[in-house]
Amino acid sequence: MLDVLQRIVLEVNSAENLNQALEIIVRRVKLALDIDVCSVYLLLSEENRLVLLASDGLNPDSIGRVKLNLGEGLVGVVARRSEPLNLDNAPDHPAYKYFPETGEECYHAFLGVPIINARRMLGVLVVQQREERRFRNEHVAFLVTLAAQLAGAISHAEMIGEIGAMQTQARNAHVQVKGIPGSSGIGIGVGVVAYSLADLDAVPDRLPSCIETEVTQFTQAVEAVQNEMEIIKQRMQDSLPAEERLLFDAYIMMLGSESLFDRTVQGIREGNKWAQAALRDTIRENTRSFEEMDDPYLRERASDLRDLGRRILSHLQAPQRTPEDFPERTILVGEDLTATQLAEVPVHRLAGLVSSRGTSSSHVAILARAMGVPAVMGMSDLPVTRLEGRQMIVDGYSGRIHIQPGRELLEEFRRLAREERQLSEELRAHSLEPAMTSDGFRIPVYANSGLLADMAPSLQSGADGIGLYRTEVPFMIRDRFPSEDEQTEIYREILTSLDPRPVTLRTLDVGGDKSLPYFPVKEDNPFLGWRGIRITLDHPEIFLTQLRAMLRASQGLSNLHIMFPMVSSVSELKGALELLARARDELLDEQLAILMPKTGVMVEVPSAVYQAEALARRVDFLSVGTNDLVQYLLAVDRNNSRVAGIYDCLHPAVLQAMVQAACGAHRAGKTIGVCGEMAADPAAVLLLLGMEMDSLSVSVSALARVKWVIRHFSRERTQELLEQSLCLDEPAAIRALLNNALVKAGLGGLVRAGIH
Amino acid sequence: MLDVLQRIVLEVNSAENLNQALEIIVRRVKLALDIDVCSVYLLLSEENRLVLLASDGLNPDSIGRVKLNLGEGLVGVVARRSEPLNLDNAPDHPAYKYFPETGEECYHAFLGVPIINARRMLGVLVVQQREERRFRNEHVAFLVTLAAQLAGAISHAEMIGEIGAMQTQARNAHVQVKGIPGSSGIGIGVGVVAYSLADLDAVPDRLPSCIETEVTQFTQAVEAVQNEMEIIKQRMQDSLPAEERLLFDAYIMMLGSESLFDRTVQGIREGNKWAQAALRDTIRENTRSFEEMDDPYLRERASDLRDLGRRILSHLQAPQRTPEDFPERTILVGEDLTATQLAEVPVHRLAGLVSSRGTSSSHVAILARAMGVPAVMGMSDLPVTRLEGRQMIVDGYSGRIHIQPGRELLEEFRRLAREERQLSEELRAHSLEPAMTSDGFRIPVYANSGLLADMAPSLQSGADGIGLYRTEVPFMIRDRFPSEDEQTEIYREILTSLDPRPVTLRTLDVGGDKSLPYFPVKEDNPFLGWRGIRITLDHPEIFLTQLRAMLRASQGLSNLHIMFPMVSSVSELKGALELLARARDELLDEQLAILMPKTGVMVEVPSAVYQAEALARRVDFLSVGTNDLVQYLLAVDRNNSRVAGIYDCLHPAVLQAMVQAACGAHRAGKTIGVCGEMAADPAAVLLLLGMEMDSLSVSVSALARVKWVIRHFSRERTQELLEQSLCLDEPAAIRALLNNALVKAGLGGLVRAGIH
Repeated sequence: MLDVLQRIVLEVNSAENLNQALEIIVRRVKLALDIDVCSVYLLLSEENRLVLLASDGLNPDSIGRVKLNLGEGLVGVVARRSEPLNLDNAPDHPAYKYFPETGEECYHAFLGVPIINARRMLGVLVVQQREERRFRNEHVAFLVTLAAQLAGAISHAEMIGEIGAMQTQARNAHVQVKGIPGSSGIGIGVGVVAYSLADLDAVPDRLPSCIETEVTQFTQAVEAVQNEMEIIKQRMQDSLPAEERLLFDAYIMMLGSESLFDRTVQGIREGNKWAQAALRDTIRENTRSFEEMDDPYLRERASDLRDLGRRILSHLQAPQRTPEDFPERTILVGEDLTATQLAEVPVHRLAGLVSSRGTSSSHVAILARAMGVPAVMGMSDLPVTRLEGRQMIVDGYSGRIHIQPGRELLEEFRRLAREERQLSEELRAHSLEPAMTSDGFRIPVYANSGLLADMAPSLQSGADGIGLYRTEVPFMIRDRFPSEDEQTEIYREILTSLDPRPVTLRTLDVGGDKSLPYFPVKEDNPFLGWRGIRITLDHPEIFLTQLRAMLRASQGLSNLHIMFPMVSSVSELKGALELLARARDELLDEQLAILMPKTGVMVEVPSAVYQAEALARRVDFLSVGTNDLVQYLLAVDRNNSRVAGIYDCLHPAVLQAMVQAACGAHRAGKTIGVCGEMAADPAAVLLLLGMEMDSLSVSVSALARVKWVIRHFSRERTQELLEQSLCLDEPAAIRALLNNALVKAGLGGLVRAGIH
Repeated sequence: MLDVLQRIVLEVNSAENLNQALEIIVRRVKLALDIDVCSVYLLLSEENRLVLLASDGLNPDSIGRVKLNLGEGLVGVVARRSEPLNLDNAPDHPAYKYFPETGEECYHAFLGVPIINARRMLGVLVVQQREERRFRNEHVAFLVTLAAQLAGAISHAEMIGEIGAMQTQARNAHVQVKGIPGSSGIGIGVGVVAYSLADLDAVPDRLPSCIETEVTQFTQAVEAVQNEMEIIKQRMQDSLPAEERLLFDAYIMMLGSESLFDRTVQGIREGNKWAQAALRDTIRENTRSFEEMDDPYLRERASDLRDLGRRILSHLQAPQRTPEDFPERTILVGEDLTATQLAEVPVHRLAGLVSSRGTSSSHVAILARAMGVPAVMGMSDLPVTRLEGRQMIVDGYSGRIHIQPGRELLEEFRRLAREERQLSEELRAHSLEPAMTSDGFRIPVYANSGLLADMAPSLQSGADGIGLYRTEVPFMIRDRFPSEDEQTEIYREILTSLDPRPVTLRTLDVGGDKSLPYFPVKEDNPFLGWRGIRITLDHPEIFLTQLRAMLRASQGLSNLHIMFPMVSSVSELKGALELLARARDELLDEQLAILMPKTGVMVEVPSAVYQAEALARRVDFLSVGTNDLVQYLLAVDRNNSRVAGIYDCLHPAVLQAMVQAACGAHRAGKTIGVCGEMAADPAAVLLLLGMEMDSLSVSVSALARVKWVIRHFSRERTQELLEQSLCLDEPAAIRALLNNALVKAGLGGLVRAGIH
């Protein structure tokens, strides 16, 4: 049974559109269960009614015609109750409603199961049987399982259908898609699909500029790959036995075959596709027929074919996009955008980002915020490749995108964007003034950074220093650990360019979602694995090199602060401090007079919150890394779009934990700052002031905003707000309270969402 | 450079023994850096000295002869300081020590980097150059990177070498390996390697009982696979083009080739291996030569070959082990033991378990504790397949195994095992007495379970009820969601068999490390992903079915408790309670009179600790799931052996969090229990009593022990111990305090570790 189920899911997932997906479902389920009728009703959003969209068994003419309200008829009852309904004789049920056009009067047994994805009712899957009998338990369970597994695919196909249909529809039939806000702001522009080199699935639809050019390029690419194969084969003449070289002949033949070569050319000529898309489709079709085969061996051949396809594609893609290929106002769209793809677009042409995976805490969203580019993340159902060349609005406040918006909507958003620009100019004008509450408390606001290039902009934006310097970057861009000298040079440049302002260098924090290509770590749960101080304590040779480099870089300066990430216990901190003392002793032996730097612990593991006082006693300062702390407190991976909705820095538990950490640090007579994303959230800033956090550290683009908020409130008022917030049980209520306070203080522009 | 590095690591990882691994390192590094000498010194544990074990460049006769103490000579300095040492002229350094046998007087430039694995100094990698010059930064960095990556492989090869050498050594040269305690107790017996069907890497070494039988079986297996290929090819005659069918001819030829067939037969005849091991070795050799090739395409061919090997293997393994094949006292050994492998061994023959992966919280360790079988986990360097037929001691107290122990050690452990049996008989004799502290507080002790079969033993062992029934099992053993009727039947049987004792059914808790084959979820961090209540709230159709089944099962009974897992916020709890109310209303509509069950929340997400009072106000009870709670508080995946050492339920943060949860529940006037592993740890039980936890729930095998502890202490005394513990900053100090208290109370037998 599991086999049948997996096969159906596989087929549905590779359907090209919603209709095809539904057809597959009804046909295959009817066959698998050996029943008389299988139908699917979907809840269409525009009319909020359940519509019969596919059936194997009912009168084909009734498809698209039978429509039911929620609660109406048996199908409506299933949808309203979110529960299976299993009846031996449907007409006996009080809710039974008869539609003559279906011809279903002859069917008695009825079983309907709801199709639900992420709490959203999508529709109902129904099977019917002529005889009067209840469906067996196994049938109910099979359909429930199938519906649960298919819900995602149906939701996906629905979206593809909607957007695909737009090509033929009136221009004001715009589509709105809800995602997760990644970076606030409004971006209006034209969709450009980012694709990584030689990834077939990422090839966007595009019309060929000249058909013959496409055919020629494709032919040349295939020949190039055939040559490669021939060369490999020749090279292996002596080292490989004949039977293994036979494989290459097979590949060379495949490349020139009717099923691969001819069909692709046909796709270009008759399908009016550019070569890359025609190739993509041929490979897809061919691999699908392999994947459907019973034999696992043959199914494996699909991967050979995909490899060949990728080889051809990389030849086709050899000439990359140049900066001029990007429209004036580019909205970059991708499955899982990377920093490299971002870097390809000239900054002044980048109007917005849309990533179908990831959340507000993904690397690319953090980059977008740092650059001040609006971004929306985590729309898993978005058919990315269909967005090439479409006009789009990215609403980074509400986390929505609008595809092909109508004129009125466009005007409204243009107005919002203008207001936004005015506000940010106003903020910038005041950014160099110190951040002091209205009752006279001065709160240093530092910048977070990981790049040397950020130092000058940080100072220009009014940063009081660097509150978090991520030392990972020099490690990530090399193909080996950087040497002590290389590190010293970088750290020295940062320290001198900020002097006398304080700079906090965080020791190497890899693992989790940041891995080094030359030091691979494979784990089932990397966020709960070997990362941060855990790695560096296990490899003192790497840790000592970094600590020595930091100390050497600080010669003659007094602004170095060193901070340890991922500390979960006192013994780890002791170990790190011992190594630091050892590094300093060694340098003293070398006659280098170096001041002992200020040391700090990053509070990001919940246990460090509980041990805040014990940790603070042993160092000079604590700094709360809210991104990870919130993840662990709520047990949520912020990059997982299935659960990202649970991630909320205003969760009451988070607030209590931060109060606890602040009290711990202050009891030990030490300072505590906040260096996570939370410190850049205007609503959260109010609470952090109320908690008496001693400093905040945010990305350069948020500096002016945070200072602006600080200057508009008294500490007393923020303490009232904190007290009120701590009495509330739910994050949404806390958010509302704080936004309200911001609006009252005349800072509504900072929290205003887009049009809902 | 990264390429070279990866290639070296790959080669070293596939070396068969330590010598071969070291040879590869020195040869390849010398070549890659184009230098005069590369050598490796390892710290040999028996003599605690650094010994030159491989060199390309130094006089070969000096290998194994040059020996240095830590701190002695340049190599000794590198090892003591755990830092690279880069000198342009080695003889100038004060620590320089000259060994005439090496012939190294002509080399001036010296660079040594330490090799460290998991904080353990393994040795030093040295390169030397004739001319007087400092090695470039890139060379230092390359070697540091290489050493960090190779440390694991070297440590692994070291262990293989040690155990492999035992075959030829005197019988009392026993090897001791340290792992993680999985289940306490002492097991003495003979190693049996568990292997899963058709997993080449898991095939154990074994002598052939009859060489000709092995050859015949192998020949038949190969023919069978060739036939399969032929049949597939024929079947595809019409549906596959000729070029794709060519592949099958290639496979058929490969199967009969000299390199595969003849070499395996040779391995059986000349290598005196059984067919499975000979096949394993042939496939390994052949795939390795593919993997070393430059072309990624050819490297892929290795997987074809492995597939063919697996096909042959599954034919060879067709006749499975029968219960009689297991020795009287079997020590089951495996890479990553599964419940199924465990189930293959008749219970009365199972003396111990050794799993090279996993930790004390892995599923198989939990099973072992439930069955009372000693287990040791997480010895990643253990060459599992070499342990077949070896005499072994499993010391589940200290987490050590002893391979081929000497007579004296064996006697000592036999004595310990006898004492252990006496203690457990004594405990069992009192297990039916109620658990009451010496000052008269009665603490209900419940059983944790996931199997119907556990109900009778739970009652016989004196359980006051079921404190945690994991409803996953009926979901996991099917190939679809179980129907409402199927679930009702199971729940009904549990409730009636325990009546009137309370039974707490936990709603479906999949995700994390428990997945359903028919509902696959792929995530980067499953423990921080879609699991527990998050899944069931997103799929109300599945949740409602389960809740209805629970309610229907409780008709006429009043002992049902329903508990929700993975709750992280008040709104989730509200959602779950609403669905429960809806399920009950529907049943009332069906005229079923059902009492509203007691409801509870599992406290396992840290945010639930902070919101304990708010959650408790809305339900009848809280129950702390310590396994997950500790994982999240410390940000540690307990199944990851790299960080499992950080996992400790006596961490001060854990204790504070539990106190906080208990206060929250009691402020709301509700009860709170503990149902994680922590409740079965005698030391922790003292603290739980001090925290005034209202009940404990443990595995059946721990019931008697926990009751025994409760009866030996007054609540007042445990409150003193809790107060003292909360003043300590480190887990080890807390453990010592509590163990001391247990020993003083005459319960030393419960904490006694094995021989260290």
